[in-house]
Amino acid sequence: MDFFVTILGSGAATPKRDRQCSSQVVNINGFKMLVDCGEAAQHQVRATHQRMQSLGTIFISHLHGDHIFGLPGLLSSMHLCGRTEPVTVFSPRGLREAMQTLFRISNTVPQYEINYVEIDASEPVEVFRNARCVVTAFPLDHSVPCYGYLFEENQPFFNIRKEAIERYALSPADIQLVKEGADFRAPDGTVVPNGELTLPKRPVHRYAYCCDTAYTESILPVVEGVDLLCMESTFANDFASVAAEKRHCTALQAAQLARKAHVGRLLLTHFSARYSDVVPLLEEAQSVFPDTIAAADGMTLAVKAL
Amino acid sequence: MDFFVTILGSGAATPKRDRQCSSQVVNINGFKMLVDCGEAAQHQVRATHQRMQSLGTIFISHLHGDHIFGLPGLLSSMHLCGRTEPVTVFSPRGLREAMQTLFRISNTVPQYEINYVEIDASEPVEVFRNARCVVTAFPLDHSVPCYGYLFEENQPFFNIRKEAIERYALSPADIQLVKEGADFRAPDGTVVPNGELTLPKRPVHRYAYCCDTAYTESILPVVEGVDLLCMESTFANDFASVAAEKRHCTALQAAQLARKAHVGRLLLTHFSARYSDVVPLLEEAQSVFPDTIAAADGMTLAVKAL
Repeated sequence: MDFFVTILGSGAATPKRDRQCSSQVVNINGFKMLVDCGEAAQHQVRATHQRMQSLGTIFISHLHGDHIFGLPGLLSSMHLCGRTEPVTVFSPRGLREAMQTLFRISNTVPQYEINYVEIDASEPVEVFRNARCVVTAFPLDHSVPCYGYLFEENQPFFNIRKEAIERYALSPADIQLVKEGADFRAPDGTVVPNGELTLPKRPVHRYAYCCDTAYTESILPVVEGVDLLCMESTFANDFASVAAEKRHCTALQAAQLARKAHVGRLLLTHFSARYSDVVPLLEEAQSVFPDTIAAADGMTLAVKAL
Repeated sequence: MDFFVTILGSGAATPKRDRQCSSQVVNINGFKMLVDCGEAAQHQVRATHQRMQSLGTIFISHLHGDHIFGLPGLLSSMHLCGRTEPVTVFSPRGLREAMQTLFRISNTVPQYEINYVEIDASEPVEVFRNARCVVTAFPLDHSVPCYGYLFEENQPFFNIRKEAIERYALSPADIQLVKEGADFRAPDGTVVPNGELTLPKRPVHRYAYCCDTAYTESILPVVEGVDLLCMESTFANDFASVAAEKRHCTALQAAQLARKAHVGRLLLTHFSARYSDVVPLLEEAQSVFPDTIAAADGMTLAVKAL
């Protein structure tokens, strides 16, 4: 299964020439989701050759401007480019009011439906599920209500063993039931357990996005063992007190969380505009968690390392 | 006097890779004003090497998204970059409500003052004046309330003739009064008329911005004889009926207005995203008004041709 993340913006607070504000596309086997939507996200969607209209499912971590100011333009362009399919936006409370106000005064009347799903949860909660993925929101520790998102592949169906189809003369209807997990009852009444008819499901891959947040071990149970953990690392550790005050992480703290959560790889993002070169932050993290990558705008990486 | 326009965005509705949404900087002898603020205007401010904090006076033509969706990010970045000087935003009614809602839900609390001046005028009205310029708003013909802006150099003071200072032994206080237009009363009671003491004022230069609007001759008295007329020209004339329906101009109509208003030069902008190449629109306008320029993002041009 293909499971990729494309970085549209990896900068914090204000855009720089080479780092836009927070935004990513998560692609699970062709199903794409937008995660955060900083200003000019729609420009980055074009620059990275995404199909804008494929991004009908949007997850917003929190309502700070560098994570939402691209949303009016994106949703407006979807409308102007003829969208009719609905869009669903998950976010903390308040986004619906702001977007509806902005659309009202700008006389923007999308001809497609926008569903605002406002999350208010103190524990991890499944917010989205389809045939390809399951998304869980979980609280982070920021200055405003803020959620991380866990993206997991969904494997709703078993793969059937080809030889079983022949041996038990399975009809298409039988096959569907078996794929869904049922045992097979033969015409003579014999019951063949599902496990004999299907291949074991392979492990699902998982990606977790944590931005923005202070260092908090409350996320560990949720992100335990994910293949790729994306952590904000706004500052290097010499700014740890500033980070704590603003409820952000340092690169070192991100790495400490990655190590404690036994993740596969760590992806650093949300770099303060004070850093033109993020290699020192990368090296700081790698001193604790070697398998770390620094996000760059336009980068696509696989959630599961080969 | 220096009087320049820098194009930040010359596209309509949705951004293209080489055309951002509407935004310009008008610079009158170092005093800069932002005119419209489409998404990513702050990126274009950086790209054109403007000083963001110099743009504390902002004129918004109307509240369609392609003219305002860059405002939240720009005002937020001004705050994050330490601004303390107030900002004044002129616009039709509604912008204050939307911006204040967006700032409230995004917990953006600028440490500088933002004055929203909401214009509601059916006739041309002076909305701004300082020592360097005078700005008049005038109604356009669009699908929502929309204003054009006329930017005129201000010449509040006369230049004094150097020989007059010596001949009449003018004190600094006398000089100031004469510069302001007063006659000079000599100690012996003789009155020297101001015209004998000062040089004639040179003609002021004027720039008019009309975007968005359908063809309307109601603007002619205001823009009569301006040095540079910036007109929207969303479509070529084969789309005249679409233009009329959406209350936009064609390039031909823009040129017809320029000719009727006896302007110095015509600047076309706000090109529909359907046009990758705007030369046909330029040629269409030039068939009626030869001294026409097609705006391009990043271009700076003098209001008065040499």
